[in-house]
Amino acid sequence: MRQSQLFTKTRKEAPKDEEAKNAKLLIQAGYIHKEMAGVYDMLPLGLRVLKKIENIIREEMDNIGGQEIELSSLQDKNLWEKTDRWNDQNVDIWFKTKLKNDTELGLGFTHEEPLTHLLKDHINSYKDLPKYIYQFQTKFRNETRAKSGIMRGREFLMKDLYSFSKTDEEHSDFYKKARDAYLKIFQRVGLGDVTFMTFASGGSFSQFSHEFQTITDAGEDTIYLSREKKIAVNKEVYNDDVLNQLGLDKSSLEEVTAVEVGNIFNLGTKFSDALELKFKNESGDLQSVIMGSYGIGLGRLMGTVVEVMSDEKGIVWPKNIAPFDIHILVLNQDDEDVSKYAFDLYEKLQKEGKEVLIDDRDKGAGEKFADSDLIGIPTRIVISRKAVDSSLFEIVDRQSQKVTQVNESDILAELMR
Amino acid sequence: MRQSQLFTKTRKEAPKDEEAKNAKLLIQAGYIHKEMAGVYDMLPLGLRVLKKIENIIREEMDNIGGQEIELSSLQDKNLWEKTDRWNDQNVDIWFKTKLKNDTELGLGFTHEEPLTHLLKDHINSYKDLPKYIYQFQTKFRNETRAKSGIMRGREFLMKDLYSFSKTDEEHSDFYKKARDAYLKIFQRVGLGDVTFMTFASGGSFSQFSHEFQTITDAGEDTIYLSREKKIAVNKEVYNDDVLNQLGLDKSSLEEVTAVEVGNIFNLGTKFSDALELKFKNESGDLQSVIMGSYGIGLGRLMGTVVEVMSDEKGIVWPKNIAPFDIHILVLNQDDEDVSKYAFDLYEKLQKEGKEVLIDDRDKGAGEKFADSDLIGIPTRIVISRKAVDSSLFEIVDRQSQKVTQVNESDILAELMR
Repeated sequence: MRQSQLFTKTRKEAPKDEEAKNAKLLIQAGYIHKEMAGVYDMLPLGLRVLKKIENIIREEMDNIGGQEIELSSLQDKNLWEKTDRWNDQNVDIWFKTKLKNDTELGLGFTHEEPLTHLLKDHINSYKDLPKYIYQFQTKFRNETRAKSGIMRGREFLMKDLYSFSKTDEEHSDFYKKARDAYLKIFQRVGLGDVTFMTFASGGSFSQFSHEFQTITDAGEDTIYLSREKKIAVNKEVYNDDVLNQLGLDKSSLEEVTAVEVGNIFNLGTKFSDALELKFKNESGDLQSVIMGSYGIGLGRLMGTVVEVMSDEKGIVWPKNIAPFDIHILVLNQDDEDVSKYAFDLYEKLQKEGKEVLIDDRDKGAGEKFADSDLIGIPTRIVISRKAVDSSLFEIVDRQSQKVTQVNESDILAELMR
Repeated sequence: MRQSQLFTKTRKEAPKDEEAKNAKLLIQAGYIHKEMAGVYDMLPLGLRVLKKIENIIREEMDNIGGQEIELSSLQDKNLWEKTDRWNDQNVDIWFKTKLKNDTELGLGFTHEEPLTHLLKDHINSYKDLPKYIYQFQTKFRNETRAKSGIMRGREFLMKDLYSFSKTDEEHSDFYKKARDAYLKIFQRVGLGDVTFMTFASGGSFSQFSHEFQTITDAGEDTIYLSREKKIAVNKEVYNDDVLNQLGLDKSSLEEVTAVEVGNIFNLGTKFSDALELKFKNESGDLQSVIMGSYGIGLGRLMGTVVEVMSDEKGIVWPKNIAPFDIHILVLNQDDEDVSKYAFDLYEKLQKEGKEVLIDDRDKGAGEKFADSDLIGIPTRIVISRKAVDSSLFEIVDRQSQKVTQVNESDILAELMR
């Protein structure tokens, strides 16, 4: 894409009304726009990042047998009364609204109820199980405090998968697969080294749930981390009994601040009992379906990457989720030779399948370098009069700041690495 | 995909609580689920169709220079008060809700206000224009009556593009491009022959807006159609003056019922004036940006295809938006030879890039044929003991019901056509 055509502009200063680093940087670089506290719009660069995260998650969910759907946001009060989750005393984050005839509706903050109810049309027998169903869907949560940028939104895109199994064994098998898929996802988006499976409080149906916690000061959780075993324990369940049970030695654990970027949870038969989702087993008896839930907030994940990877110059995107692969900066853009050279390279790289942003704006070199650092595309090449004359080009890696000097004949090969 | 794995089931009967043919068929075939009147969930087959429509529209919007974003649903009252569209007397389809501190919020039914406001950060000079910005975004509309299935939803996915231009000429040039892109979209989704550009009432800034009306009894509009000139006039502006102006002869026009599947509209400076979106022209003077809006409701488009294309046996999907390209029905599925033959073909076709649904369910031939007609995938091939023995296979075109007898050696070539 030609940067001169992109409608968003960078700002010289970070916005003053934001506390969170992720929001400051993403707004300053033109990735997002703040509509109100906890509510953000995705601008072209931001949407490109979000879609890449979405595609990685989709691939991993498809790999473990997930089937994609999309449920509505508007929710029927009657359904949620059956699980006792309509009442604002029980669930304090509902946004509620009304039809013209005064029928109360809610805006879904999660989707166990509607999906469990829906499946009554499609699941009757043990032959219909197991099933794994997921969506990318906008959740609404009426948070009292929303000061963490896109890490805690009042409206945000979430991937939620729900599993429906016949037996505890079947449930456990899938639960383990989902856990592995989650670790792969965090690896692929670039947070693998700082994200740890964390034992957290369970519920009626199992002692623990499992969170995926990424180490960052921007987090709200405290966890006790065993770097050696690559697992952690959330403060909420941190006690001697639990440590014993998990074979963890207190003295080897590190107390760190972290953010929950994903969680998986055994729901047991809580929802299938309340909403009567049952199947006939091989003996012809009715049994409740065993459920699990598996969530990842995409905005939170994107915000966490910014918190963890950015440096003093701006954002540093991991390769797999960067809005573009390569940033070509055209200096001396009024020089026809230089401009032609840059656009030829731009075309060639795109033909080879690379996503390229070319800074062809009528701006000085200093501003282009600063914006490039702020936007944070992984690889940068500068095309200037001097470079064209000398046939020697500098390719810069945004993360390591490593500069590679490349001869004209090697540019394409180097950029395609 | 293996149909035995698909979590949705077809129903023997259409649902009794639906009046609209599109909802009846889509629910019966397992494409959608009704959450409440006017609110539907997209199940795996439905989501596949919707995504194909979305991709066609995205390609055409990118082709005319559109940049994709995603705005929030939650809307700030202050912004909409500036255009006098907050008040329920002026706009009677708002869903409204509240933050915990009682701040009123709305759920976006359209997005002129937030986008115009947002652009104040990015547009200053004539050099920043024109810009074309679009999104696929869920709209909420508090419709009193919602009996048209997915053709008039209370919550639905819409593509809305907004154009921002310096001059009337620039605006008109893009408006014509958008009109052509719309005609291409309706062609590509399979409605080209029954969809006509229709002159409808304009607004303060132009005499006409342009609707794209598809002929169907399920529509709510009356239009006067010139088949020869491939244009129509909406009843709301149908009078002698208008006919003269458009060079249309009353006696050549046909009165038909139709549904509006898209519209394009000159907004002039209505929103840029109210929200103060201005740019400095070449003389350094401030001018208001000229805007246009360009909408397509994806659910409505999908529902219209079902209304127009279905027959007494079920849905008939046009090739470009069908959930799968080919439906393989495996009869005698317990016969290992037959099953192996069918799955080999399934793998081969997928390797060639075809999307295939294979009916490997433990069901009788009659049920498989009926479900296949109901689901409406364009091409069907039956793999049975008899066909394998005789090396002669029948390929059926869902729309024309044309049967082609094919020798074993020609199957792949025929299915790849």
